Amino acid sequence: MRRKSQGRSDRRRKDAEFQQLPWRSVVNPYPPLEFLSADQIEAIHDASLQILEELGVEFLSTRALELLKGAGAEVDLETQMVRFDRGLVMETVAKAPSSFTLTPRNPERRLTVGGGRVCFSTVGGPPNVHDCERGRRAGNFQDYCDFIRLAQSLNIVHYIGNQPCPPVELPAESRHLDCYVANVLYCDRVFQCSAIGAERAVDGIDVMAIARGLSREEMAGDPGIMTNINCNSPRRYDGAMSDGLIAMAEHGQGVVVTPFTLMGAMTPVTVAAALAQQNAEALAGIALTQIARPGAPVVYGGFTSNVDMRSGAPAFGTPENAKATIAGGQLARRYGLPYRSSNANASNVVDAQAAYESEMSIWSAVLGGANLLYHAAGWLEGGLTASFEKFILDAELLQMFAEMLLPIEVDTASLALDAIRDVQPGGHFFGSPHTMERYETAFYQPMISDWRNYETWEEAGAPTATERATAVWKQLLEDYEQPPLDPAIAEELDVFVRRRKEQIDRAAA
Amino acid sequence: MRRKSQGRSDRRRKDAEFQQLPWRSVVNPYPPLEFLSADQIEAIHDASLQILEELGVEFLSTRALELLKGAGAEVDLETQMVRFDRGLVMETVAKAPSSFTLTPRNPERRLTVGGGRVCFSTVGGPPNVHDCERGRRAGNFQDYCDFIRLAQSLNIVHYIGNQPCPPVELPAESRHLDCYVANVLYCDRVFQCSAIGAERAVDGIDVMAIARGLSREEMAGDPGIMTNINCNSPRRYDGAMSDGLIAMAEHGQGVVVTPFTLMGAMTPVTVAAALAQQNAEALAGIALTQIARPGAPVVYGGFTSNVDMRSGAPAFGTPENAKATIAGGQLARRYGLPYRSSNANASNVVDAQAAYESEMSIWSAVLGGANLLYHAAGWLEGGLTASFEKFILDAELLQMFAEMLLPIEVDTASLALDAIRDVQPGGHFFGSPHTMERYETAFYQPMISDWRNYETWEEAGAPTATERATAVWKQLLEDYEQPPLDPAIAEELDVFVRRRKEQIDRAAA
Repeated sequence: MRRKSQGRSDRRRKDAEFQQLPWRSVVNPYPPLEFLSADQIEAIHDASLQILEELGVEFLSTRALELLKGAGAEVDLETQMVRFDRGLVMETVAKAPSSFTLTPRNPERRLTVGGGRVCFSTVGGPPNVHDCERGRRAGNFQDYCDFIRLAQSLNIVHYIGNQPCPPVELPAESRHLDCYVANVLYCDRVFQCSAIGAERAVDGIDVMAIARGLSREEMAGDPGIMTNINCNSPRRYDGAMSDGLIAMAEHGQGVVVTPFTLMGAMTPVTVAAALAQQNAEALAGIALTQIARPGAPVVYGGFTSNVDMRSGAPAFGTPENAKATIAGGQLARRYGLPYRSSNANASNVVDAQAAYESEMSIWSAVLGGANLLYHAAGWLEGGLTASFEKFILDAELLQMFAEMLLPIEVDTASLALDAIRDVQPGGHFFGSPHTMERYETAFYQPMISDWRNYETWEEAGAPTATERATAVWKQLLEDYEQPPLDPAIAEELDVFVRRRKEQIDRAAA
Repeated sequence: MRRKSQGRSDRRRKDAEFQQLPWRSVVNPYPPLEFLSADQIEAIHDASLQILEELGVEFLSTRALELLKGAGAEVDLETQMVRFDRGLVMETVAKAPSSFTLTPRNPERRLTVGGGRVCFSTVGGPPNVHDCERGRRAGNFQDYCDFIRLAQSLNIVHYIGNQPCPPVELPAESRHLDCYVANVLYCDRVFQCSAIGAERAVDGIDVMAIARGLSREEMAGDPGIMTNINCNSPRRYDGAMSDGLIAMAEHGQGVVVTPFTLMGAMTPVTVAAALAQQNAEALAGIALTQIARPGAPVVYGGFTSNVDMRSGAPAFGTPENAKATIAGGQLARRYGLPYRSSNANASNVVDAQAAYESEMSIWSAVLGGANLLYHAAGWLEGGLTASFEKFILDAELLQMFAEMLLPIEVDTASLALDAIRDVQPGGHFFGSPHTMERYETAFYQPMISDWRNYETWEEAGAPTATERATAVWKQLLEDYEQPPLDPAIAEELDVFVRRRKEQIDRAAA
């Protein structure tokens, strides 16, 4: 559109920093990719039931062992090993819903988990933080809040993962409370709580309940948060995770059960074995949610990648990771469950590797039918670092997927035979009325992709995509506006946190 | 595998530079992605036939007009506009084979084009060259030969595109001969020739025929080269391209017919209209190949991306590009034709953008059923630059696809229930016999992905993926070995080129 007036061009440049897609529920309208045949799915399913029947899974929690025993599992209280009859597994897992809805304090940011939709979260869990201006450092509360503000600022980030970074300067036993309150003060979306123990889970439920003006009981029927429960593969649920899982399920909140299965380390090196083990471990955890509360919202999580067999280092976005992700989706759908995957990479820096490993992760997850893409924005260094630049880069990638998945319109207007007729061979369509009516919204407008010619780009200082991402996150934080919150609710949150911190201090004393 | 002996670790490090996948025919064993319904395909098909019947396509070549008129098309010799009855189009296109084989001088590097296979080529066509040590410059013959050597060195590069870079210091009228000879001296694979005019095409055929020890006639029944023919969209085939297309088809060599259709510039802004126009233009060119020689090997090319509507600049690896690529594959299969797509990006530098736009291109092309991925290695800057680092980065991406597409094995050995039984909860599989038997080949070993931990990586100088790619291409060129060629053939090539250059000089005088 070189012929347009300077006026519009200036206006567009001014707005360019803020240009993003509107909030949108992202739907994959196409049949998911399938890398396994129906027979192969059944063979893996069968192997996983054999694992559950013959070998069992360890649950290092008295509460979990009691519940499982009560439901009819074969529980050895001494070894804490639980074996599951296949009938019990299938009956119990069948009670889980195929999709569910989570409502945060802003009902317009409600999420449906399942049913062809895919929701994108911030990174959760890295101990470190990085940005190109301040370098790599341990997580702190200022950075934590900045990640929450970025999540609020970007419409493509549908929910907050558990602790984008840890505020290490705050007391370890109560910092989850500061994080939860920051989640609801600085952002109006669903968040994942920590479920290391029942207490931290229930604190998360209480904070969201207060933010929504509901009681804990009201929220049980109308959930608003999720947690992620990792199986300590192979075949072990630790005590705190088991108790957190039970607490979340009992209170009717979402539980994502994710075996942490790096092939070659926590599972055999073959994809089939890793999937069989992942499936056994996931089904065991999912069964426990349904024993704790039949119908509780639960998600089948897959996190099967591989290690570098030369060093033992974890690798992500690999071909084997992509295969396992796609096959994992088929397994989740085998049980009618929503599916969680991740946007992971193992790069130490926001470079081409970070981008291509992330693309491998996102394509396999989204086209493979994932309903939750965890760590969708900001994960770097195999999950050891939350990166501000990666957060922006990922938001760009996620927006591209949201746009790519919009169905192609085919009708008389979009086929545009009149427009084609009006432009002679050798002509162009820049000035065609059909173009003029549509050009502002016809194509995805990127946040950081730079399509200037080489000379113009070089004159502008030859910025890489990563450098452009720095400018974007700084601008977003500068322009950030806190979503309004009823002062009475803010006060109630404050009172709640003070009371809980006193309780925690007393318990520690 | 931290516990392994230093000896093995050293050996592996020494070999690391050369570690790559073996030569392999890459097959996509899964049903291709489909973004259009059968009805939508038919609507686009119908619109494109309307374009051919009512509006027509310009052919600026007397030879083409004669052939088309002779076949029954409605030809206006004055305007050079050709209208095609839909019956004629469909009957003619139906004569094209659904797949074909190209044999280069090394029969082990034979390519089958079609039938679920995907072949990867070098970049073709950029005027400039870039590497991180010598910067950006106009193409030259030394760089040209280095790209050919890299193609020979990397097993994942199946064939040579037309002029990875132009040797601008050589005479314009005869440099194609120097390029063709370099193709067969430094590499033993299929190459694409230039078909700007019949002469350059036939020169390419002759060079490959000499290299294979065949006559031009023998090669007509056993083709060895391809060319790419762009439609100058909208709706124009220029004279030189038309004549080149006819010459290649008449001699039984492969023709890839690719409308050059950037939405918003050469087509309307809507994907449906771009596809309808692309389809009309492609079918017109494909029909001409079959009129020139029924059964001639031909490929349906798609090159529909979009421009940046703010600047008019071409963009690649966009959501709209991916949609058009996937839908284009459906159209090619509608006619039973092999499909060509590209690995394109618009970045000015080998950074995260170059990687994510390329990934968008490769995923949509390969999962969308492309049989040829043109510009698969080395394309940068929207095709204005051939990059040495991008060549290596792309080879890494292509290898990852080759590995990802290998079917998942599911049998007793791969399900490994014994291995799972032998490792207790909380244990690991590093030392499991099942692991030890398989660890060397279980996972893809990357060429440039760096999975070292942050501290080790930082101590090593914190190299980015792009910097690691520099080391790889330099090493590959250092280690390059010219594939053996019968001296008599080398002599014959020399004689041929000297004769042709004299003819060209005389014609110019």
